Amino acid sequence: MEVRVKILYTSLCHTDVYFWEAKGQTPVFPRIFGHEAGGIVESVGEGVTDLAPGDHVLPVFTGECKECAHCKSEESNMCDLLRINTDRGVMINDGKTRFSINGKPIYHFVGTSTFSEYTVIHVGCLAKINPAASLDKVCVLSCGISTGFGATVNVAKPAKGSTVAIFGLGAVGLAAAEGARVSGASRIIGVDLNPNRFEEAKKFGCTEFVNPLEHKKPVQEVLAEMTNGGVDRSVECTGNIKAMISAFECVHDGWGVAVLVGVPHKDAEFKTHPMNLLNERTLKGTFFGNYKPRSDLPLVVEKYMNKELELEKFITHSVSFAEINKAFDLMLKGEGLRCIIRMED
Amino acid sequence: MEVRVKILYTSLCHTDVYFWEAKGQTPVFPRIFGHEAGGIVESVGEGVTDLAPGDHVLPVFTGECKECAHCKSEESNMCDLLRINTDRGVMINDGKTRFSINGKPIYHFVGTSTFSEYTVIHVGCLAKINPAASLDKVCVLSCGISTGFGATVNVAKPAKGSTVAIFGLGAVGLAAAEGARVSGASRIIGVDLNPNRFEEAKKFGCTEFVNPLEHKKPVQEVLAEMTNGGVDRSVECTGNIKAMISAFECVHDGWGVAVLVGVPHKDAEFKTHPMNLLNERTLKGTFFGNYKPRSDLPLVVEKYMNKELELEKFITHSVSFAEINKAFDLMLKGEGLRCIIRMED
Ligand SMILES: NC(=O)c1ccc[n+]([C@@H]2O[C@H](COP(=O)([O-])OP(=O)(O)OC[C@H]3O[C@@H](n4cnc5c(N)ncnc54)[C@H](O)[C@@H]3O)[C@@H](O)[C@H]2O)c1
Ligand SMILES: NC(=O)c1ccc[n+]([C@@H]2O[C@H](COP(=O)([O-])OP(=O)(O)OC[C@H]3O[C@@H](n4cnc5c(N)ncnc54)[C@H](O)[C@@H]3O)[C@@H](O)[C@H]2O)c1
Ligand SMILES: [Zn+2]
Ligand SMILES: [Zn+2]
Ligand SMILES: [Zn+2]
Ligand SMILES: [Zn+2]
Repeated sequence: MEVRVKILYTSLCHTDVYFWEAKGQTPVFPRIFGHEAGGIVESVGEGVTDLAPGDHVLPVFTGECKECAHCKSEESNMCDLLRINTDRGVMINDGKTRFSINGKPIYHFVGTSTFSEYTVIHVGCLAKINPAASLDKVCVLSCGISTGFGATVNVAKPAKGSTVAIFGLGAVGLAAAEGARVSGASRIIGVDLNPNRFEEAKKFGCTEFVNPLEHKKPVQEVLAEMTNGGVDRSVECTGNIKAMISAFECVHDGWGVAVLVGVPHKDAEFKTHPMNLLNERTLKGTFFGNYKPRSDLPLVVEKYMNKELELEKFITHSVSFAEINKAFDLMLKGEGLRCIIRMED
Repeated sequence: MEVRVKILYTSLCHTDVYFWEAKGQTPVFPRIFGHEAGGIVESVGEGVTDLAPGDHVLPVFTGECKECAHCKSEESNMCDLLRINTDRGVMINDGKTRFSINGKPIYHFVGTSTFSEYTVIHVGCLAKINPAASLDKVCVLSCGISTGFGATVNVAKPAKGSTVAIFGLGAVGLAAAEGARVSGASRIIGVDLNPNRFEEAKKFGCTEFVNPLEHKKPVQEVLAEMTNGGVDRSVECTGNIKAMISAFECVHDGWGVAVLVGVPHKDAEFKTHPMNLLNERTLKGTFFGNYKPRSDLPLVVEKYMNKELELEKFITHSVSFAEINKAFDLMLKGEGLRCIIRMED
């Protein structure tokens, strides 16, 4: 069930940096990072019938076996077999790696390891897409952009004309804002601690901005005052627990829905008074924007093809593979959104 | 906009007892309790066009003005004008009471005060129902039973064949179980600290029971083991914060939905690790089962009329108005479910 893929373009996502920094972690070593990418099937292994050499594919850090309870459920994309595993480092078939150096294994990362000219991926973690789609653009759909966009359109589902708050205006949050714009939200309020994010966010439909550091009151109260009682929907894309709580408490009673996307610290605790829930608010979390990688991602690529979803504005930099460290520097400095890494030059 | 109603039957709900005990409260005094009842319109005041003398009505502690943002929203029943207010004690029109004794005011309670032969109620808090429905049965729909039943059918919405956990097997919880039974749930797991509740709960569709006191592990882990990872839906009807947290954490990742109904203590805090949410669980709260009193309650009465919903099994006792203290004694001892109080004999 394995596929060898020639990677053409890959981009750097915050998750790579998080695991590369390895703070408080004891990861397998050495391993090849990278999980946001686009490539072409080079060859397929035993059991693979869905893909053939030449197919254009997007690797995804979480998979879709199409057989487990999650894959069969219309609501879940948390495949029992191929759900993200940040520690495994080997293929599930035989517990071995497909990379080595001088006879010693090099480990995989989240089943994708796209910072490599060729990689081996389980067929369940590959979305076959329209070959007419430029891989240097749609590669960003294989993680962050789909996550944020899906969080809004699949989970928060704002109605036309509604008010949406987005917490965190990195690539994921801006993709969530893009989802609100596409859904016809009339007010999109961006919330970030970094005011540099605000100018860029206008391109993604944000109509107003709130910096929690500029207010004495908790930001949920500021938002409630701006919106006559609360926003209709909120999407949290920071990973910060305070932002998660604010994102929940800022939605309107009676109908408000808050969606959590950011990956929290191990010891974070979500706390709120239960009356905030009884007053008919809804709290949800999502993983990869609730998209099923194989079934849904090809359709997201089509949204780009017919210009419903704009990807160019997420791509602020491009470097050759040899310059990959520049991509890390940019992300660490908080500059730009996505940096494409070209594998072939 | 006021209506004078002749109350024929009323029943005692836990909320009356809670406010009668007045622990840590400084309520207006004297006031007339009672909010679960059925009666007949005696006369209508200026502005009332929807009701006429002779109409059969159920008073409701929360209202529906039909004009505010909540009443106009399909999702909310938390009317801005007539939402429950446990402190007010007077009519909203003129800030005065309609009861008095020796020239001194007697205050209202949650706009209903049904422990009285006659009471005055805002038209927005009265549901006009089918006059063929026996008021000594459908009176229980005016609070607890609709709350629990609606929490399941309107908010948790279990699919046919699904597994549902009900926390708290009082009248509200058993009505939630009845909602799961009517929805075609195949497993309904009742959770209560009081094992005396289990025998009765079988009549309401409960197929299995768990007493958290009989397990060393947290009850959410016990339930996850019983159900291969978690229940599809849970409904919490205890008011206990520990039960609220367990009810959330026991739902299956990917698609589980937990609904909170119980009214928590003022200083309660809902706490969970945000990863429980990110793993695609949903947490919601509901108020009066998300029913809009005037628009929806008449249809719930019809469910009783066409035998979809059984009410008789909730009614375990009946006393005359003179014996109302017996109803309080029964509730305090945790005996029975609903005690009907007959106003006319
Ligand atoms: N659930 C998933 O499937 C999934 C997938 C990809 C990424 N993520 C997570 O999404 C989050 C966002 O990713 P990104 O790549 O956009 O990150 P990023 O670092 O580029 O952006 C995060 C933004 O949040 C802002 N921020 C931080 N704390 C804040 C607070 N308290 N209030 C307001 N703003 C605050 C930062 O200033 C920054 O602009 C991360 O936690 C990432 O791990 C989740
Ligand atoms: N949201 C609303 O609109 C609304 C309306 C009516 C009632 N309520 C609330 O619903 C709740 C239930 O009402 P009721 O009349 O059925 O009360 P009840 O006292 O008859 O039943 C509550 C049951 O919960 C059980 N319980 C308590 N703590 C528990 C725990 N930790 N784990 C498991 N079981 C536990 C008790 O043993 C009891 O059987 C109350 O909190 C009430 O205030 C809410
Ligand atoms: Zn699967
Ligand atoms: Zn990523
Ligand atoms: Zn209203
Ligand atoms: Zn009640």
